[in-house]
Amino acid sequence: MKDGSAFLNERANTIADGMVHEAERLRIAVAKGPLDCRLIDAGAKVRGSIEAGLRIAEICMGGLGTVKLAMGPSEPWALNIEVRSSQPVLACLGSQYAGWNLSEGKYFAMGSGPVRVLAGVEPLFEILTYREQASHSVVVLETADPPPEALVRKVSKASGVTPENLTFIYAPTQSLAGTIQIVARVLEVALHKAKDIDFPIDDIVEGIARAPVPAPHPDFMQAMGRTNDAIIYGGLAQLFVTGPLDAARELAQKLPSSSSRDYGEPFTKVFERFKGDFYAIDPLLFSPAEVIVTSMETGETFRTGARDFGRLDWGQG
Amino acid sequence: MKDGSAFLNERANTIADGMVHEAERLRIAVAKGPLDCRLIDAGAKVRGSIEAGLRIAEICMGGLGTVKLAMGPSEPWALNIEVRSSQPVLACLGSQYAGWNLSEGKYFAMGSGPVRVLAGVEPLFEILTYREQASHSVVVLETADPPPEALVRKVSKASGVTPENLTFIYAPTQSLAGTIQIVARVLEVALHKAKDIDFPIDDIVEGIARAPVPAPHPDFMQAMGRTNDAIIYGGLAQLFVTGPLDAARELAQKLPSSSSRDYGEPFTKVFERFKGDFYAIDPLLFSPAEVIVTSMETGETFRTGARDFGRLDWGQG
Amino acid sequence: MKDGSAFLNERANTIADGMVHEAERLRIAVAKGPLDCRLIDAGAKVRGSIEAGLRIAEICMGGLGTVKLAMGPSEPWALNIEVRSSQPVLACLGSQYAGWNLSEGKYFAMGSGPVRVLAGVEPLFEILTYREQASHSVVVLETADPPPEALVRKVSKASGVTPENLTFIYAPTQSLAGTIQIVARVLEVALHKAKDIDFPIDDIVEGIARAPVPAPHPDFMQAMGRTNDAIIYGGLAQLFVTGPLDAARELAQKLPSSSSRDYGEPFTKVFERFKGDFYAIDPLLFSPAEVIVTSMETGETFRTGARDFGRLDWGQG
Repeated sequence: MKDGSAFLNERANTIADGMVHEAERLRIAVAKGPLDCRLIDAGAKVRGSIEAGLRIAEICMGGLGTVKLAMGPSEPWALNIEVRSSQPVLACLGSQYAGWNLSEGKYFAMGSGPVRVLAGVEPLFEILTYREQASHSVVVLETADPPPEALVRKVSKASGVTPENLTFIYAPTQSLAGTIQIVARVLEVALHKAKDIDFPIDDIVEGIARAPVPAPHPDFMQAMGRTNDAIIYGGLAQLFVTGPLDAARELAQKLPSSSSRDYGEPFTKVFERFKGDFYAIDPLLFSPAEVIVTSMETGETFRTGARDFGRLDWGQG
Repeated sequence: MKDGSAFLNERANTIADGMVHEAERLRIAVAKGPLDCRLIDAGAKVRGSIEAGLRIAEICMGGLGTVKLAMGPSEPWALNIEVRSSQPVLACLGSQYAGWNLSEGKYFAMGSGPVRVLAGVEPLFEILTYREQASHSVVVLETADPPPEALVRKVSKASGVTPENLTFIYAPTQSLAGTIQIVARVLEVALHKAKDIDFPIDDIVEGIARAPVPAPHPDFMQAMGRTNDAIIYGGLAQLFVTGPLDAARELAQKLPSSSSRDYGEPFTKVFERFKGDFYAIDPLLFSPAEVIVTSMETGETFRTGARDFGRLDWGQG
Repeated sequence: MKDGSAFLNERANTIADGMVHEAERLRIAVAKGPLDCRLIDAGAKVRGSIEAGLRIAEICMGGLGTVKLAMGPSEPWALNIEVRSSQPVLACLGSQYAGWNLSEGKYFAMGSGPVRVLAGVEPLFEILTYREQASHSVVVLETADPPPEALVRKVSKASGVTPENLTFIYAPTQSLAGTIQIVARVLEVALHKAKDIDFPIDDIVEGIARAPVPAPHPDFMQAMGRTNDAIIYGGLAQLFVTGPLDAARELAQKLPSSSSRDYGEPFTKVFERFKGDFYAIDPLLFSPAEVIVTSMETGETFRTGARDFGRLDWGQG
């Protein structure tokens, strides 16, 4: 992926084309949207599917990661997702992180996907210098509503991609595809927290992670709670890092969710406590329960935190 | 998969073409059969392979499912199969279920595969209305003998596919490929039992399942016993269902194999007890040992039954 | 794979082409080498990646095996590799085994990959009679240095492939890709030991294996120790064999690493004890810790040995 190439965006667009080609199988709906952009509803007015969610997750990672299901029959939650990338910084921070505020008026949306390395408008891109130029791009939105025209225009302008070559995929938190693509962020949150605690992101060379897949909940608050708890209390991530050993050890100590002041309660309770102000919650809470950091410098490995399935209050009867 | 398309049949035929292309690698034999149909022997006069079995299983599911191996090193039987589909009703009931009686004279065979949605002659297709029209199709037979001409003619007539565009894949229960493709029915039996106990099949939207892979046994009875026991005592399936919560709960209560009056003995013993009359056995026995049903309506999950490896009498020394 | 075809070499070359196409993503370097051969540095002067290691492992197996990662969250080492082949003899012994001594002067290298079935110069090829003829081939070398001209000429002459159609992939033991491709030999060592203890290799029809992936260690000795220990104390392999039951039972008894007189210490200690003379170490040590042998003849299965994670001294803090 040469800086200035279209690697992530081309890959993501190819996966999106594949989804359109198998729309019925995936139970998604494809339509023309504002300014002739391509809209893919993956869980709002349609049922969507787990398969759609897996593909959206790979789109989110700009085609630089693999996302698959695995069963852990002896675990309290058998269905698990495994995410891996040999380019975790570009895949997770450059593309997957839902960091581009695309809200327009009453329409709230945080943009995810490789369109972000075209636009490069977030503060994150001050330390992440990789950029692309592309003819096509894909935007993933965790929402039940298609984007308004003003949003499409804004994305087109910032990314340099004409509206008719933009694909917007949207699925609400409560949907099958939404659940999958959110829990597939178990690796991304580890990278994002590493950045937040000032670990040099260029020192992260490999990442692999796993989290249990909750049942989608029809209520938005509960669904949001479950997908967050899947990572905070059920997630496991391993990072391979270069750089000094002390930095690797410190990363391991700080990275698990248990290092946060807000750790302990179900996410919905935390959210309530802060009266629904998402940004008042300790950002350090958003990370996997258990972390493995391997230092390439010395070959040492630090394993910290622990998964705590007892805290997953997912209505199992 | 628009009703009337050739989606499942085209996919299955493409996988079959790939098998032919790699015949030596898969240790299968390809030949011309009656009326110039294509025959694939995957385990009768040839050794066959696990890889052939995995592909046959995906053919059985009309290309709408994924079938893969996974190791569970801490489990009594390390080798496991995992099956998943985001279209479980079409994949498992429409295609995989060996429900088309193709017996001709002394030749006994139950047809499996996407040819069934072309013919649509079974009672099952009264409630499953999806149909296809296709130029090519594939039939999978659990037997050691190639189909006689009368069978080929019957299939051609019922499916509307000319004999030279029909592929018949056959492998006996005792073969590697046979073992794999049968155990890969761990999800299908869950769906079929759901239908039998009058759960509305259109409410099943996702399915994933896992079962241990037994050693193939050279004796037909033992081989049949093991592949059934793999599912009945070792299988685990998760279904995501829409519809009322009560129906989901009831489905979970009734679905595990332990709800059957014939549960408890090795399958060969049950078979003997009924003097080899397969259809005298309680049909409710044919289902996974452990079941997880997730209600999309409420987000609740019910986990019932249990895998019991102690009942797998598979000659482990 | 008809004897005399180019099956393994074509597949391996296609995977190598794919690596070149995604060189930046894989963090590998592609260059022209002596006599215009193609060089791929996968971990010497470049960082390389786990993804590159997985692909090299599949190249080593001549495209006849699958190599993938899986997480075992409850195991002491969560990251695991799973290797499978329905043609284990050709994949592992014919291609993957690093058995071709390509040392030239001070340059030490054991050649691995499908080039070996072109050359067929090792004693192993007295009992393994499969040969290929191919226009392109790939050689994998576990080393930090590119091959000298004399080596390229020797390989070209012995394989019948012109130098410009030869690809040499090299990565040192200490690298990410090196670690992965070595641990992916967990199945190969089982086959090689089977051969060493005179089990008829043509009776091995299927193989699947798993081993934990250690952190790469910057020191060569430690890195070599860890990759060997991963297999010797952490490996699990299942073989399906034809032939007499007694032979299968005896194979199971002899195959685990614990049957070796040198079993018990970390590999680095064993190596030191023999003053670094690799060939003085008991060859029977090189095998998986735990073994499952399934007899196709009788359907019986023998499980012997045991994984012992307590012996994996991999600097976990």
